[in-house]
Amino acid sequence: MNPAHLQATHLSGPVLVIGTGLLGASIGLGLRARSVDVVLSDPSPSAQAVAQDIGAGRALDPGEELSPQLVVVASPPDVTARVVSQALRDYPSAVVVDIASVKASVLSELQQDPALEPADLARYIGTHPMAGREKSGPVAARGELFTSMPWVLCPNEQTSAVALKTAQALAIDLGAVVSKMSVDEHDASVALISHLPQVMSSLLASRLQDTEPHALSLAGQGLRDVTRIAASDPALWVQILGANAAKLVKILYGVREDLNRLIGTLEHPEATGARLDLAQLISEGNAGQARIPGKHGAPPQSFAWLTVLVDDRPGQIAQLLTEIGEVGINLEDLRLDHSSGQDVGMVEISVLPSRRQELIDYLDSHGWKVLQ
Amino acid sequence: MNPAHLQATHLSGPVLVIGTGLLGASIGLGLRARSVDVVLSDPSPSAQAVAQDIGAGRALDPGEELSPQLVVVASPPDVTARVVSQALRDYPSAVVVDIASVKASVLSELQQDPALEPADLARYIGTHPMAGREKSGPVAARGELFTSMPWVLCPNEQTSAVALKTAQALAIDLGAVVSKMSVDEHDASVALISHLPQVMSSLLASRLQDTEPHALSLAGQGLRDVTRIAASDPALWVQILGANAAKLVKILYGVREDLNRLIGTLEHPEATGARLDLAQLISEGNAGQARIPGKHGAPPQSFAWLTVLVDDRPGQIAQLLTEIGEVGINLEDLRLDHSSGQDVGMVEISVLPSRRQELIDYLDSHGWKVLQ
Repeated sequence: MNPAHLQATHLSGPVLVIGTGLLGASIGLGLRARSVDVVLSDPSPSAQAVAQDIGAGRALDPGEELSPQLVVVASPPDVTARVVSQALRDYPSAVVVDIASVKASVLSELQQDPALEPADLARYIGTHPMAGREKSGPVAARGELFTSMPWVLCPNEQTSAVALKTAQALAIDLGAVVSKMSVDEHDASVALISHLPQVMSSLLASRLQDTEPHALSLAGQGLRDVTRIAASDPALWVQILGANAAKLVKILYGVREDLNRLIGTLEHPEATGARLDLAQLISEGNAGQARIPGKHGAPPQSFAWLTVLVDDRPGQIAQLLTEIGEVGINLEDLRLDHSSGQDVGMVEISVLPSRRQELIDYLDSHGWKVLQ
Repeated sequence: MNPAHLQATHLSGPVLVIGTGLLGASIGLGLRARSVDVVLSDPSPSAQAVAQDIGAGRALDPGEELSPQLVVVASPPDVTARVVSQALRDYPSAVVVDIASVKASVLSELQQDPALEPADLARYIGTHPMAGREKSGPVAARGELFTSMPWVLCPNEQTSAVALKTAQALAIDLGAVVSKMSVDEHDASVALISHLPQVMSSLLASRLQDTEPHALSLAGQGLRDVTRIAASDPALWVQILGANAAKLVKILYGVREDLNRLIGTLEHPEATGARLDLAQLISEGNAGQARIPGKHGAPPQSFAWLTVLVDDRPGQIAQLLTEIGEVGINLEDLRLDHSSGQDVGMVEISVLPSRRQELIDYLDSHGWKVLQ
């Protein structure tokens, strides 16, 4: 392996991380695990202190003249462009990346910034690690947050080869899967696959606010799944939705059109064509859902499921999975399916279709209740 | 225990199951496991033959005069009332239940049926087992389908005590958790907790139909969760949505109002109050989501989560769960968190909050990578 290649795929540091919330502190932790020198900076001294305490990096030494290889701006989306601009001027030989979840607004603010030269923008590249948690703050940080997750790089017209390579090195050092898109492609993509689901989940969940408890007692896994992300942080999502408003609203026009058609159909369920309209809505949902890739980028529905009934006591699921491991069959996915009131559960297991029958036979012969 | 009590909570049979799809055949299988005499009937001879072959019950013997204790109508929603009416007349001493997922439309059709006497309706009770699978047909049937799931009984004004007790015995014999509501309460409840999520999931998923694959490659668990039920069967859902149209459309008016407000806000994201509007949408979603009960009817968010990093090879998760079982800690919930491209996964585990730290210490000391 030649040194040039090493340099291209690994960071040498130092790396300055500005903003030590969940993502900034997680980046610091991940890089420290690779022994990269990480310097932390946050407008909140207490957030910075927590990040230092958990080992995400160090403070600037008194009198130290920092010359970072890379500055990672992990500030709230609202102030990202301003912080990037300042970093480009403060560290004239550093590459500067940001990790905000919307990219076009940051870039256009930077391109219109009178304090910046075109040469400065050559050192900037917008990026977006597709990772997060329902919790926030440096206490929730973890170095493995980006492992196996997509990390999108959005080079602009000015971005230099060095800047692109450095951003790539950051993502690779943190175990992420790199992909590259224009800022517009990125923002259109996340509007659809991230911002739209958030909005739909919130719109649905907000309908549950004033429900009678007896109705909610009938809730099953379907409702739980569709509303899980409705628990997200309002402060963060205000900034994300605001910054990608134009892209998101275009998609919502389509949703509104479909919703209006559905409402019209439900107002006259006996009318000619009503059943066809309803069938079309569900079928179109089938078609869209079938396009979502599965785990490891596998085509959707390429795994076979089976269900095993277990008692709800310690060790039962472990025992089951131990026996599955003994046959040498890899678990592709697993879900626990429970409902209110009783202490029995179903474990749904997905495996490669070619191994399914073998596993069923094995579990059957070992006394498990397998529901095919 | 006195015999009267026994009689009240268990079926003696014979039970006639009309309609041998997924639910009818599953009811047959579950009752056969309790040695109840089950007779099957389906307009499709091949569906009935499959149901018999898997052991869901027997055909009527030639020349046999059947006098069932209970008739379970498991026909498609569309024809349910007609089949119930016929069964009430064919078996004048039997209790007749149906299991359609919408209740008011069936009852009102029966009440207006000139072929029925009020005395007939005393033997009828509408019910709804909240269970299902993404697959359909008798091949997908399993006797444990109703285990731990809610089974709603909707007695009408005429329903006799015997009919109510018999329906209760059916649900209990199949391991379900019985609850009781009026038909109107039931239909309003399922409109909100079942039909609305289906519609929102389908509306969202249908937007993915014409997307570029590169956008979908960024899809994470959030999108997968929100769209899972969009894979549901159009033929069945046309009937369900049509039958509960009036209740569902009222809720959709509220969704449309919220959606219109959101679109207005996103069209002018810089306007005064825009940020407040967005924050309110997400906060209201938070509030609604927090009201959904968890597993075993526990209050939501009463479990503590931790995350463990595992290699994606056979036996890893089993090994982990075995060690958790060794500490005697019960797993409350579990999810595998993966994304495209790499062979490392995260196992998210929920346990009672009081056991969380203990488990973290234990796993840490056994060499697992725990992400708190």
